[in-house]
Amino acid sequence: MESLKGNCLLAQSGGPTSVINASALGCIQAAMASPLIGHVYAAAHGIQGVLKDRLYDLNEEDPAELELLRYTPSSAFGSCRYKLADASEKEEDYQRILEIFRKYEIRYFFYNGGNDSMDTCNKISKYLAGKGYACRVMGIPKTIDNDLACTDHCPGFGSAAKYIATSLLEISRDAKVYDNRSVTIVEIMGRNAGWLTAAAALAQIGGDGPDLIYLPELPCDIEKLMGDIRRVYEEKGDCLVAISEGVRDKEGRFLSAYFNDIASSKDAFGHAQMGGLAASLAAHCKAQLPGAKVRGIELSLLQRCASHAASATDIEESYQAGKTAFEAAAAGTTDKMVAFRRAEGAEYRCEMVLVDLADVANEEKKIPRAWINEAGNGVLQPAKDYIAPLILGETAQPKENGLPRLARLKKVPAKAE
Amino acid sequence: MESLKGNCLLAQSGGPTSVINASALGCIQAAMASPLIGHVYAAAHGIQGVLKDRLYDLNEEDPAELELLRYTPSSAFGSCRYKLADASEKEEDYQRILEIFRKYEIRYFFYNGGNDSMDTCNKISKYLAGKGYACRVMGIPKTIDNDLACTDHCPGFGSAAKYIATSLLEISRDAKVYDNRSVTIVEIMGRNAGWLTAAAALAQIGGDGPDLIYLPELPCDIEKLMGDIRRVYEEKGDCLVAISEGVRDKEGRFLSAYFNDIASSKDAFGHAQMGGLAASLAAHCKAQLPGAKVRGIELSLLQRCASHAASATDIEESYQAGKTAFEAAAAGTTDKMVAFRRAEGAEYRCEMVLVDLADVANEEKKIPRAWINEAGNGVLQPAKDYIAPLILGETAQPKENGLPRLARLKKVPAKAE
Repeated sequence: MESLKGNCLLAQSGGPTSVINASALGCIQAAMASPLIGHVYAAAHGIQGVLKDRLYDLNEEDPAELELLRYTPSSAFGSCRYKLADASEKEEDYQRILEIFRKYEIRYFFYNGGNDSMDTCNKISKYLAGKGYACRVMGIPKTIDNDLACTDHCPGFGSAAKYIATSLLEISRDAKVYDNRSVTIVEIMGRNAGWLTAAAALAQIGGDGPDLIYLPELPCDIEKLMGDIRRVYEEKGDCLVAISEGVRDKEGRFLSAYFNDIASSKDAFGHAQMGGLAASLAAHCKAQLPGAKVRGIELSLLQRCASHAASATDIEESYQAGKTAFEAAAAGTTDKMVAFRRAEGAEYRCEMVLVDLADVANEEKKIPRAWINEAGNGVLQPAKDYIAPLILGETAQPKENGLPRLARLKKVPAKAE
Repeated sequence: MESLKGNCLLAQSGGPTSVINASALGCIQAAMASPLIGHVYAAAHGIQGVLKDRLYDLNEEDPAELELLRYTPSSAFGSCRYKLADASEKEEDYQRILEIFRKYEIRYFFYNGGNDSMDTCNKISKYLAGKGYACRVMGIPKTIDNDLACTDHCPGFGSAAKYIATSLLEISRDAKVYDNRSVTIVEIMGRNAGWLTAAAALAQIGGDGPDLIYLPELPCDIEKLMGDIRRVYEEKGDCLVAISEGVRDKEGRFLSAYFNDIASSKDAFGHAQMGGLAASLAAHCKAQLPGAKVRGIELSLLQRCASHAASATDIEESYQAGKTAFEAAAAGTTDKMVAFRRAEGAEYRCEMVLVDLADVANEEKKIPRAWINEAGNGVLQPAKDYIAPLILGETAQPKENGLPRLARLKKVPAKAE
């Protein structure tokens, strides 16, 4: 494989995570160290920044400030949820991307995102190849949802899981502090896959942690849910519930829809906008269990941006994912996503492998039925064993005046040479 | 002052904090080291545990496990919100307390709580003195609300402030990640005093942190609030609001009540939708600002229990408050609360002083008007300077499997000798 010289472009897409910038940094630092690369650029707001000719020249940044990306949450260059149509349907976007790539002599393109982004990445790769434009296109995975196919787990998940398990542990201590009877409902992200909610099970230490866990993988109606809560509440005097925002009944209707007849708005991908289940369910419990102190808690954005509680394992793996993507591309690979393989054996080890973008695009990985208990209100040991190593290690995030010292980038607009 | 020998009793009251157990530990360790003290007991669920004869014998605990109280959130021995009536109105409770104190030979009593608890503490002290029962009674302050009189600040506030500022910093990065226009509303605890909400201002670093801050100290109606949000949103393209749950309009009506009236929507079960202020205000913004991506976030219980993000300064001061309470009592003091005095000078230093319980009981300290901006939608530098040193330093909380290793106490019931 001949060595391909040119410039490098990175873009970030989809919902941000605490460690998406660690992946960016791994890719950026490897690219900057490579003799193949002239400039390293980042697109403002994902592929939209390419379409709008809004690139930043990262060679203009202070390397020490870039280094802080390792500990800075939320897509530093901006994200988007723009989904490219097929080139056969709407070629303009692809023509524009090729034009911009030619303008800046982009020969290495890295797209850091979830399954929709891998689809985008795959389409761009195929289009450029079809036009005979030499460019190595690589996907770097990220999603707190942990639902990407072909990878043991996803960068971003471990940190979100650590935040969720830590919060559930702390909340379970707080919720039991009074002598009166309480029900506490914690709503956790995850429309279709329950990985994040399952992480709450790691807080089940002694008497701590959630009593009941509901995942979107299994149907659950409101009667079953209330029956479970009532039983635990009457036995123990209190009940802590971890529930996914995406739990549906047998007819596939979101539980939150029971409580809310307002037509749910949809995002650019046609996903229903979730949220509000904890509050609604809390109001319902209050009516059903007179005398109980009931509280609904939505962990909300902090699940994906609480960098102060990130997993050191996740930070390092995310960095390596970005670095591996560049190294593979420099060695001649294209059209692949970096994936994680868990090495065999008792001790946890994570290996970087490459998988076809086409195999990842638009697939969703869910929790196996065998990892969920018979009653559908808890997770079993294999699920805990799977998640446990991913939350290990504390972040070395630098602090300034007692707060996270996040990267402050200049974001100098790129100029074509 | 003759030295008083006997047993020591500690009780925790009111809303818990991340560091209330650090104060307990300071008191417990000092008592255990004192030749004056036989047994050290803790009451289950505050003064209610005394009334119900439910005490734990802390000498039965593993000292290493007790040491973990320094980093364990939420009242380890349980809390209560029980308010004693005046002895002149209802003497039974006081008679019962005296009976239990005699039974266990309690000569040192420490009540760790907020202003209601200092009132309780004061009443018990006066009653015991009136009955000629020798007992030294001391208050140890705690409240995330920071609203106690006669003290520069309160144990528990610094950790809550650090969590809030950290979260607002992280949320502000996340909220701006997309290219579309957004409004994010974060609801913060504090019914009457705005100290916690003011802490959000510490996240105002460069372009980060909240754009608008609303405290309960000043009236704010919905029109003013929406006018402010609309202006920032139109100027900047996004707007991050930190608002206290206790904000009221000119008539003294909670803003949240306004929304509950106008919404009056009911769910499928006929329950009124009683969302929090953040959720209601978000729904209102969504209607008022078509096209905006609007999100309401309630920081909820994590403000007071997120021990993983506690302030090292707060942990140490809280410990010292408990230790000082015991040492003062051992030296003959009674009927006082430990308070913090900020030493003069540029460098932050906190001194322990003693104040009369009667002066603290039932008073509330609020943010001075001069620390709030003219428009009533932000805080000024003196407020930031006041809070800044209280959040300094990271917790040394031990971890086990990547999660906080919280104290696991045996809670052995006390036996009278």
